[in-house]
Amino acid sequence: MYFFCIFDKKSVILCQICAKMELKVIAYARNGHSDKFGIPRQSREESPIETRIVFEPEFAIPEALRGIEGFSHLWLIWGFSENNSKQHLISTKPASNKDLPPIGFSPTVRPPRLGGNTRMGVFATRSPFRPNPIGLSSVRLLRVEKNTLVVSGADLLDGTPIYDIKPYLSFSDSHADAQNGYADAHIDDRLHVEMPAGETKLTEQEKRDIAYILSQDPRPGYQDDPDRAYKLDYAGYTVTFTVDGKTAYVQIIETSK
Amino acid sequence: MYFFCIFDKKSVILCQICAKMELKVIAYARNGHSDKFGIPRQSREESPIETRIVFEPEFAIPEALRGIEGFSHLWLIWGFSENNSKQHLISTKPASNKDLPPIGFSPTVRPPRLGGNTRMGVFATRSPFRPNPIGLSSVRLLRVEKNTLVVSGADLLDGTPIYDIKPYLSFSDSHADAQNGYADAHIDDRLHVEMPAGETKLTEQEKRDIAYILSQDPRPGYQDDPDRAYKLDYAGYTVTFTVDGKTAYVQIIETSK
Repeated sequence: MYFFCIFDKKSVILCQICAKMELKVIAYARNGHSDKFGIPRQSREESPIETRIVFEPEFAIPEALRGIEGFSHLWLIWGFSENNSKQHLISTKPASNKDLPPIGFSPTVRPPRLGGNTRMGVFATRSPFRPNPIGLSSVRLLRVEKNTLVVSGADLLDGTPIYDIKPYLSFSDSHADAQNGYADAHIDDRLHVEMPAGETKLTEQEKRDIAYILSQDPRPGYQDDPDRAYKLDYAGYTVTFTVDGKTAYVQIIETSK
Repeated sequence: MYFFCIFDKKSVILCQICAKMELKVIAYARNGHSDKFGIPRQSREESPIETRIVFEPEFAIPEALRGIEGFSHLWLIWGFSENNSKQHLISTKPASNKDLPPIGFSPTVRPPRLGGNTRMGVFATRSPFRPNPIGLSSVRLLRVEKNTLVVSGADLLDGTPIYDIKPYLSFSDSHADAQNGYADAHIDDRLHVEMPAGETKLTEQEKRDIAYILSQDPRPGYQDDPDRAYKLDYAGYTVTFTVDGKTAYVQIIETSK
């Protein structure tokens, strides 16, 4: 249990008290989610959205993927990168662990699933605002293209750093009967999606992706105003839509500026 | 996607190129596994072994666990700590990302499940010898005791640092039909366990724990010698056992020195 302590001035002292681990980026996620708005709140099996896992040069080694094609699902361990980078600024000046303020760490958060009004303990949520901003997603492995993994179902922003990839093992990872606490509420709140008649700009895949994203109801949980227009950026398009009851109406699809 | 770069001499420069993330230990696992030998190779639902998740003072806040008791299972994200700490020594002298040798990272590893002879890509395994030595385990939440979580099924060494705890969400995390590649082989290779007649030192729980550990066949995959005695340290005891065919015979149970 010994890690190198970067807060100690001496360079090769191993220290248990201020144990920390430093993670290297092994890959980046590449997909159409250029904006946080619209990213599904959890990875979902049925998502048609493809994400490419592009390895950093040091890790782009075909042998490192040997045997991976036999697995239908993978785990991605990744970094919440846009929301809370300030939380993880660290100072180079020596400081004890206690001197470091737990900036940005709040013991409770407001899960969107509960309408954004009820506070839950951060360890009872998958919120990005956690002591270590690590994300965890199971994804479906679609194919391996040379050094790149193509997966679906990832709830990741384009450019998300990936720190680890593991095979999904159903005999230890799958608990179909798990009790999901407060998260069981509203699981099947899906919207019906109406595209504009005669829409021709989008490919079939892009149409499917955007319809899927809107069906997940990307609006903040506490908003329900049929006159309010929302803008979603995806795959180079800006999609303007409204929501009335259980239907999302796509108003305009433009090429993003 | 900006992280603070500890390899840059200036102290507040944000730099994308050498993006790294630094993790703080939020808790330590406490259980009877004082030695690596005997730790199950994956977390398993049926494991009776209890592990206490003891939070560090900064994170021992009851509110941070609010709502967690509604979840039957949790994810632990933790550090492989004993095997490969040298791999993660870092130098305080400024260096570019490219100057850092990928010490200890091997693109392929030999999973014990395949007898220790066949090499698989590291990202197709749950091996500890990976670029970032992060472990992932789903565990059953037994109870919350003040600031401590008591779980079962953890495949962790006593003292393992924990970096994150998340609720298990069956609708995104459970894929009962996932294909497990080469890992499907030999899943049900369990041993029958014979305890010495008249054993009285152990409590019923300790007896159950040790029987479970031996039933998992902790021997290295390539060994099959009925005369060979193995020693297992668990919960303050040293257990000497042999294996003949599909039966483990406990020979002696002594208090560990």
